[in-house]
Amino acid sequence: MKVIFGEIEISTDARKQLVDITGRVERIVNDSGVENGICLIHSLHSTTAIIINEHESGLLDDILNKIAADYPRERGWHHDRVDDNADAHLASIFTGPSKILPVKAKQLVRGTWQNIFLLELDGPRVGRRIIVEILGK
Amino acid sequence: MKVIFGEIEISTDARKQLVDITGRVERIVNDSGVENGICLIHSLHSTTAIIINEHESGLLDDILNKIAADYPRERGWHHDRVDDNADAHLASIFTGPSKILPVKAKQLVRGTWQNIFLLELDGPRVGRRIIVEILGK
Amino acid sequence: MKVIFGEIEISTDARKQLVDITGRVERIVNDSGVENGICLIHSLHSTTAIIINEHESGLLDDILNKIAADYPRERGWHHDRVDDNADAHLASIFTGPSKILPVKAKQLVRGTWQNIFLLELDGPRVGRRIIVEILGK
Repeated sequence: MKVIFGEIEISTDARKQLVDITGRVERIVNDSGVENGICLIHSLHSTTAIIINEHESGLLDDILNKIAADYPRERGWHHDRVDDNADAHLASIFTGPSKILPVKAKQLVRGTWQNIFLLELDGPRVGRRIIVEILGK
Repeated sequence: MKVIFGEIEISTDARKQLVDITGRVERIVNDSGVENGICLIHSLHSTTAIIINEHESGLLDDILNKIAADYPRERGWHHDRVDDNADAHLASIFTGPSKILPVKAKQLVRGTWQNIFLLELDGPRVGRRIIVEILGK
Repeated sequence: MKVIFGEIEISTDARKQLVDITGRVERIVNDSGVENGICLIHSLHSTTAIIINEHESGLLDDILNKIAADYPRERGWHHDRVDDNADAHLASIFTGPSKILPVKAKQLVRGTWQNIFLLELDGPRVGRRIIVEILGK
């Protein structure tokens, strides 16, 4: 049994942004030597999320617009008295910090239109850290 | 250590639909011979999701109505210029392509009211594919 | 390879409530003896969810208020004819029954602001059960 840890570090340059990390995750899977198992992609931050979907530029705009509409910034959130980013925490909570994919025959198993993205919700930030763990044999 | 892959293929017959796949997942778990581990249920499509909840017909209607209200079709989504299904992608993203359950004593561990469903968001479609991976010992 | 199961039992005292279970999950991870692997936290109920985010009291209020706004109780849900808690099921479905975290060097891997919570949506209840499974080596 093998348990391999990789890490991706991302600097973002807008408050809300989607960064495609598929290639970097796949390199870690390839380098891991794991033939069959799972790959856990976990962001260590409470104002980011990991999502999986199609990389089409119009859709990426739709996602960010939908988040802005569903988690508006100025709503008198209680957390804004402490730190002015309640909207980012809420969007992170209901989207989730992790995704998990199968690994089969040394490849990440994903659909043709399933790319992996870091969703930045409170950028710009330096050094967003994503753990990529491959567990298998 | 064992890593076993199964696959479920589903054809759907409405644009939005819930298909209970609990029995099919449990058969793959039973056939896997894994005694203790995890079961990852991952749909390979960016316009579907996997959800876990009670199989009660009124609730299934409520879920589909809630999705139609929260992810309306006609909203001038940018992705609709490319492919007329942005609503389906958005609902998929915020619901998620996978769920994971424990496997203990050769059984899927789930609550009495926790059934597993494919959520079709852009049907009808032939050959929706769901990977069922059991990893354990 | 090790697969260790723990269980957390929680009694809640409000209809909607967040209960921080980070310390209890970490004790199970520590007791498991697993050095490197994953930790799956799964609630067995269809009217609860598991979330990960910052433990700040204002934010906890924001989360519960956001859920009340997004999943209102009185909306003529079909499921309410059977059991008067459709809002709780819907919030559970779109938040999810499980979260998964890496385990590395015998420690749960989580960000500084990533605590683990049971989200009660249909309390008060006695004996809410959460499975904590650690799989690794």
